[in-house]
This record gives sequence, C-alpha cells and structure tokens, in this order.
Amino acid sequence: MRVKPTDLDIAFAGSPVDRADRLRTDASALEALKGPQARLLLLDGLAPRLDGQGALAWGSLADAEPGAEIVFLGLMDGAACFAQVAPALWQGGAKGPRNMFPLLSALSPGDMATFGGAKALVDWHARHRFCARCGSPTELAKGGWQRNCTSPACKAEHFPRVDPVTIMLVELAGAPEPTVLLGRQPMFPPLNYSALAGFVEPGETIEEAVAREIEEEAGVRARDVSYVVSQPWPFVSSLMIGCHAWADSPEITIDRNELDDARWFTRTEVARAMDGDADAALKLPPRFAIAHQLLRWWLARG
Amino acid sequence: MRVKPTDLDIAFAGSPVDRADRLRTDASALEALKGPQARLLLLDGLAPRLDGQGALAWGSLADAEPGAEIVFLGLMDGAACFAQVAPALWQGGAKGPRNMFPLLSALSPGDMATFGGAKALVDWHARHRFCARCGSPTELAKGGWQRNCTSPACKAEHFPRVDPVTIMLVELAGAPEPTVLLGRQPMFPPLNYSALAGFVEPGETIEEAVAREIEEEAGVRARDVSYVVSQPWPFVSSLMIGCHAWADSPEITIDRNELDDARWFTRTEVARAMDGDADAALKLPPRFAIAHQLLRWWLARG
Ligand SMILES: [Zn+2]
Ligand SMILES: [Zn+2]
Repeated sequence: MRVKPTDLDIAFAGSPVDRADRLRTDASALEALKGPQARLLLLDGLAPRLDGQGALAWGSLADAEPGAEIVFLGLMDGAACFAQVAPALWQGGAKGPRNMFPLLSALSPGDMATFGGAKALVDWHARHRFCARCGSPTELAKGGWQRNCTSPACKAEHFPRVDPVTIMLVELAGAPEPTVLLGRQPMFPPLNYSALAGFVEPGETIEEAVAREIEEEAGVRARDVSYVVSQPWPFVSSLMIGCHAWADSPEITIDRNELDDARWFTRTEVARAMDGDADAALKLPPRFAIAHQLLRWWLARG
Repeated sequence: MRVKPTDLDIAFAGSPVDRADRLRTDASALEALKGPQARLLLLDGLAPRLDGQGALAWGSLADAEPGAEIVFLGLMDGAACFAQVAPALWQGGAKGPRNMFPLLSALSPGDMATFGGAKALVDWHARHRFCARCGSPTELAKGGWQRNCTSPACKAEHFPRVDPVTIMLVELAGAPEPTVLLGRQPMFPPLNYSALAGFVEPGETIEEAVAREIEEEAGVRARDVSYVVSQPWPFVSSLMIGCHAWADSPEITIDRNELDDARWFTRTEVARAMDGDADAALKLPPRFAIAHQLLRWWLARG
C-alpha cells in the first residue's frame, strides 16, 4: 500500500483555529473581540494545561496574569482565542515540565496543533523583549504577530521567527534491498536512530541544504533531492522540511562533533523497528517526529 | 518540452564556495586561514563591488575597515573567503544603491549566489548588535555563524535568521485552457503581476501556509498543494518555497490591504508575456525572481 504524504500523521499540523490575519491590523476589532466570550489558552509555563477530558484547557481573559501580554491566536467556533505571555516567562521563571511529550500524547491532533502554534509564538515573545538592532525594549503589536522597537530613533519592526530545517532520508542506489541512512546523536537513548537534519542557512536552497548536511555529518554525497512533507515543530520554532535523496556510494565518514553513529539500515530492519519488535536492530523516533512519518512513507513506498 | 525544477535558472543558488562548516568551531584553524592568501569580498554598503570583468571583486583582509567584524564564508579554489561587517552598516551609514539588480545582472550565477549568501549574513550581523532576550550587546562567534550575548547572566546564543516564504501558482481546475492566478501589489509597476506569496508562520506546514495565503489575499480555496522548487532570496534573508496548487472555483475576493489586483491568466497570455510581447496582457517578474521560474515551469508543463 502506498502512503501519500497527505496520509501521514503530521503532528502539530491541522489546527482548527482560523488565524483571521486581517483582524491583527484592526485594533478596534481586536479590542472588541476581548469580551467575556473570549477564550484564553491556559498554559503551565510553556506546557499545555489539560481539562478533565484530556483536551486543552481554556479560560477567559480574566484568568490572565497581571502584566501579561495577550496574543491573538485566531477564531474557533465563533470565539476569539488568545494566549498570554506571562511575565514569569521573560523573567526566567519556570517553563513547565522539561519533557512535555507525555502531556501532549493525551491531546487530539487539532489541540496539539493549536498548542504548538501558540507555544512557538508565546515563546518568541518571551525571548524578544529587546530590539536586536539597538537594544531598546520592544512592545507587542498587531495582536502579537509583531514587536516594535520603542526607541523613536530606531522603530525597527520584528516578526515571529520560523527556522527552516531540512530532514532527510538518504537511500542507497543499487542496494539489494531498499536501504536508508540514519544517524544517532550522542544524547539519544541507546539504539535510537533518526533521519539526519540541519538548519537551512542564508544563501541555500532546500536541496543545497540537504546535500550539505549529508556531506557534513556523514560524508555521503547525495543527489536527486525531492521534497516529501513538512511539519511545524515548536521546540523552539522550526519548520521541518522532510526530503528524500539518493546516494551512490555506501561509504560513510562520521562527523563525531555532530553524530555518535551513522549507518545504513535495510527496509526489513526499519520495518521490524516500526512494528515495535524488541529485538529490532534499532529504535525509531516517536510518531510525533517527522522522521517517524518519513520512515512510514518510505516503508510503504512502491 | 518539459522543464524539470532542476533545469530552472534559480538565482542566488549554486555558489562555488564550500561552507566548510567544521572550521567555524575550530578557532585556531580559522585564525590560521586569515593569512595573506585570504580573500575578502568587497562590498559597497550591502551591494557587490565588481572587478573589470564584471565579476565579484575580492581583496585581502588588509582591505577590511577598522573595527569591522570578519565573517568566514568558506573555501574556494583553496583560499579562505571572508566578508566584513563594516561599522557603517550598523551605525546606519549608506547601504549602497537602493536597487542593486542592474549591478547583479552582470554577475555569473555562481558569483550571484556567493554574493547573496554573504549579503544575507552580513546584513544579519548589522541588524543584530544586541541580545533580543536581555538587550545587552552581542559579539560575533563561530566565524560569523553565531552571535553570543555578552551578559554573563544571559549568555543567549543567536543564529543567522532565514525566513521561509511560500510562493505559489494556483491553477484553475477544469478551465478550457490552463489558467493561473496572479496578483499585483500596489507598489508594482503598471501591468506587472506575480505569484502570490507570504511568510510561513509558527505552527504551519508549508501546505497550510500556501492555502492560508491564497485564501487571505484572493479569497480562493486551494487544494493539492505540491512543492516545485526553492530559492534563497537575500532581501532580507528569505527561503522562497515555490509551490503549485489547484483551485476549483474561479471566484476571487481581493484583500485590498495586500493586493491591488488578482486575476486569472491563461497560458496563452502568460506565454506572450514570457516572450516579451509588448502587447501582452501582463508583465512578468524578472528572471531573478522565483515567480518567473515557476511560470517557466508551468508553461512547459505537460
Ligand atoms: Zn531598536
Ligand atoms: Zn542576553
């Protein structure tokens, strides 16, 4: 069975919140939305708070902390949805549990996406209190989709940051069985392998970034890069760009500053790991990760 | 004739400079590269300086201005290549010609890509003198691929920014002749139309960003988004992600805050414009723009 990229379970995608971008620049409309019907996403630091049913918990704007900044997420079921940038977030207070994935597992895909988008935006506000150009304080603008420098001499405008990251399955051409390159970072639990990945740099296409990362980290030359699927990843605020590429030589030269190991795995080995076989040669990243979905796509590939 | 994305003339891609990333973290190796053989890219503000043959002009590190920061671009023909962040750039001095495209037209594709990557990086340094988290001054690190906060209480690390932008050809399903949606911004010269485009926001996939932009700007619902080709765009520092999508309804509702006009154009109309016909119904973006290349790809599509 062939799995189309659109059939994959891409975590953090598919929020039911309509961003309603036009309202961001309409200050009076935004104010009018901040009535008692408005919903405030409740966070524990940067982690989601859940209601009794395992869904995202929402309160009203009356629940916002004193001094919090309010960002407009959009409209859902006719109600305006907001999140708060609580002062503790920029004052270096607790940011919630270090590993929030157990919490996220309870959420529906739509809730996860709503949380992910809000988390990335709130976190950006918490980390951009000052103007990178002149060092003056910044203030929230356009419903939270911009920050402006408060210095009249500067007035720089700053926008939420999204960092494009390429993540790639490199397949060995001419192998007796379909075979893919995976690597492990030193911090990974034992036997865990994943797709290689790296940030796109200024001056690169997606395809150039893919080829550079593979060459750098594993010494493998890639060709015929193709795009498969993308994912927003709110840790911190990345756009994961999932690709496939071909390699002609199995030779690997590992960059030990980046990777603990990099190896070729056969389809049989990856399939056993995907089935959760305890004796599999490797362990795969969790289903939330685009690497997991890329491997699902690859296993089902014709 | 079918044009593959890899056959397109994507401007600012294909630099011959090897980024040699591993050297960035090797302070002594970087210092050793800064000898008399080292090459310094000569800029006029943020615009390229050309030599007598219409190529990028290179000097030596002795040509760097007093107080300039030096960034490592990579290796080319065995020589280490650098660029400078001249103090005038962050002190608000002249940034070179407002429209540098006439200058860029003289460059080879490789030179254009080398310039584009350097320009985006140098510009980032000029606009990030301070820590967005705490407002303290930052200092260059890792050969210019990082800036660190100088406050011992903060120590935040900052990385060159790349902003992903989706740009899309929306094609009308079931039209008698292949037909594509193009729009014009108020600032465009008369009759100029281009592909719709917009920044990817936190919490979106590429496909979601494409659909949102089309809906927002033209009130058109898109489906079956597919990736075509990407381009680095150094004004300021974007990653253009070129896509194709289908629409089922020809109805258009223009967002007048964003667009002056949006219309469907037939393949015949676009082909006439591509041929430079003075009587064509529209004028296309220049060949440097990914929109031009997307339209070339679309015209040649089977
Ligand atoms: Zn400022
Ligand atoms: Zn700082």
